[in-house]
Amino acid sequence: MTQSLAKHSVGVVQPQCIKFQKPLTLACGLQLPNYELMVETYGELNAAKDNAILICHALSGDHHAAGLHSPQDKKPGWWDHYIGPGKPIDTARFFVVSINNLGGCNGSTGPSSIDPATGQPWGSRFPHLRVRDWVHSQARLADYLGIDQWAAVIGGSLGGMQAMRWSLEYPERLRHCIVIASAMKLTAQNIAFNQTARQAIMSDPEFHQGDYLLHNTLPAQGLAIARMIGHITYLSDHGMGKKFGRDLRSGSFTQGKNELVKFQIESYLEYQGDSFAKSFDANTYILMTRALDYFDLAREYNHDPVAAFELARAKFLVLSFNSDWRFAPERSAEIVTALIKANRDVVYGEIESPHGHDAFLIPQQPRYWDIFKNYMATIEVSN
Amino acid sequence: MTQSLAKHSVGVVQPQCIKFQKPLTLACGLQLPNYELMVETYGELNAAKDNAILICHALSGDHHAAGLHSPQDKKPGWWDHYIGPGKPIDTARFFVVSINNLGGCNGSTGPSSIDPATGQPWGSRFPHLRVRDWVHSQARLADYLGIDQWAAVIGGSLGGMQAMRWSLEYPERLRHCIVIASAMKLTAQNIAFNQTARQAIMSDPEFHQGDYLLHNTLPAQGLAIARMIGHITYLSDHGMGKKFGRDLRSGSFTQGKNELVKFQIESYLEYQGDSFAKSFDANTYILMTRALDYFDLAREYNHDPVAAFELARAKFLVLSFNSDWRFAPERSAEIVTALIKANRDVVYGEIESPHGHDAFLIPQQPRYWDIFKNYMATIEVSN
Repeated sequence: MTQSLAKHSVGVVQPQCIKFQKPLTLACGLQLPNYELMVETYGELNAAKDNAILICHALSGDHHAAGLHSPQDKKPGWWDHYIGPGKPIDTARFFVVSINNLGGCNGSTGPSSIDPATGQPWGSRFPHLRVRDWVHSQARLADYLGIDQWAAVIGGSLGGMQAMRWSLEYPERLRHCIVIASAMKLTAQNIAFNQTARQAIMSDPEFHQGDYLLHNTLPAQGLAIARMIGHITYLSDHGMGKKFGRDLRSGSFTQGKNELVKFQIESYLEYQGDSFAKSFDANTYILMTRALDYFDLAREYNHDPVAAFELARAKFLVLSFNSDWRFAPERSAEIVTALIKANRDVVYGEIESPHGHDAFLIPQQPRYWDIFKNYMATIEVSN
Repeated sequence: MTQSLAKHSVGVVQPQCIKFQKPLTLACGLQLPNYELMVETYGELNAAKDNAILICHALSGDHHAAGLHSPQDKKPGWWDHYIGPGKPIDTARFFVVSINNLGGCNGSTGPSSIDPATGQPWGSRFPHLRVRDWVHSQARLADYLGIDQWAAVIGGSLGGMQAMRWSLEYPERLRHCIVIASAMKLTAQNIAFNQTARQAIMSDPEFHQGDYLLHNTLPAQGLAIARMIGHITYLSDHGMGKKFGRDLRSGSFTQGKNELVKFQIESYLEYQGDSFAKSFDANTYILMTRALDYFDLAREYNHDPVAAFELARAKFLVLSFNSDWRFAPERSAEIVTALIKANRDVVYGEIESPHGHDAFLIPQQPRYWDIFKNYMATIEVSN
């Protein structure tokens, strides 16, 4: 870690594993008798305990949102560009809490954890989770940390769904709700991509109906395909064209030469798929995509998002990116329209970006940075 | 076949298999010593032999473009809505020739055919084909049929690429070139989807490096996933939303109930994938998608499409559909711009349709029908 990096970095951070012994009843009716959550925090909780921010992660995220795990670490946390001293989520002002969600595969209790009842990995028997289950488990984490009210709950994509659900389940426990590149519910096309990804995993013969760990194997090929499908849809056509175009990795189109041609984009995608398959759990991928598909903000409010948001007490910031076709600006506009009709306080920004859905993670987007930072600066906290 | 259907149908048709004994040198430098093409024709070739139309099929098409194979047949050919008496491709005026391309899996010589040199299926050893190879083999078919000049060469998607290549390889052998929902070359995103589909097939353990027939098996799971990926991208987000929305096939979201939910779109896609995998050859799918990826109209013309089209002598009709995001209207506009700069005669129509890339196959689109039919009516043929 160089000195210049250190200035705007939260530095070396230490994840902690928090054990919850009280059973958690899930939306599906099953109970988790006990569970663990992996957590990182950045900044200091103030005496009034009113400067805490919860970061909710997306499909493949985890608790490691900022900083490094050791000075030798090459890659910082997944949202390091936006969390740290002087950054939009300013750790000089805020106490930031980032967790690996229940069902995850980075230390929190999930399908690859050992089920204490059997002494074997949960695998296929791990309960299906909904976004509200995460919100309930995060509320317990807030209790544990002594945080009655979050200054803000923030999330992109699936994380934005958690932030919105927070505003309805615990209206008094957050002052600001920040929803980036998200939606009140997925479209059929979005479900279709997720289902195809799941199908790729489940049809891998190494999947064993989800109990691959019992068979000492992994459905790595299927998970790699799933990631490739996802990855294409998180980028924009234009962005991919600019980065890769039709550049070749190997071979040529010389006539009379019998050789296979490989495009750069092909090698890139295969690399992405393979490295993801080495670091992520297939059951978690299935669980997370199902939670995405199942989420429907207003389902329990007579399918009326206005009636739903009338329960919210937070102020909202909603952000979208014009090249994001997986969570299109139209989806964010629907959120904003419902919030306005429900008389909620909302700031909306549609940001021009070539980066597609991934834009919410990507640095050097001045307009995104400015809106995000300025909004965060309006959040009042005690000294 | 009911009487009313018969009126606008080409009726019962008989495919024929044509054997070519002269070796065909391919773009890759290899030679096919001999080969067969499956062909269907509709209508009558006139005495002047100037009313012949060549239909070039897309990725998963074949020679059976119109009519029925028996009176009991439930499903007509793939472009039956647009080929027949009184239809845009009017068989009362035109002699229509439709073929299964070389490398196909519906009767023409392809990877699942027997290689006469070994007595075993070609499998992985079948040569890689380019769009120009199809055009050359189609020119030989024209010779065989005694057709010096096509009244028109017509194709959608990959078929449009063949039509454009025809206009450059044999400028004097076609009077009209009709290019629907196509592109001069694929974008990186498009290649990425094709590559992910191929990867799904090739990582199926039943693939055996393409020699699955020698192992008496089929990579059916991989091919089903490949088709699911393709299918999503041939439809539009809006169209899928309208047709399926978030309707459920099974299960419910009732809280306290531990059941898996299945959306209609999921069942639909799985059905599409599985039935495709039963009827199509995986090596052909790989070969066709590679031909799509490799196609670059102006590669051999110093990457200048204007210089390329200056060689063309045909008149052009170019059509696109506004909801087609796989072969977006921008791609058609690029074709039209190049044609105009090359002083070619071109009619362009961008058609409003909710059906995405598949729109070119779908009936009851009055604007598409009208432009297509009116243009075809301008094609002069002898009595």
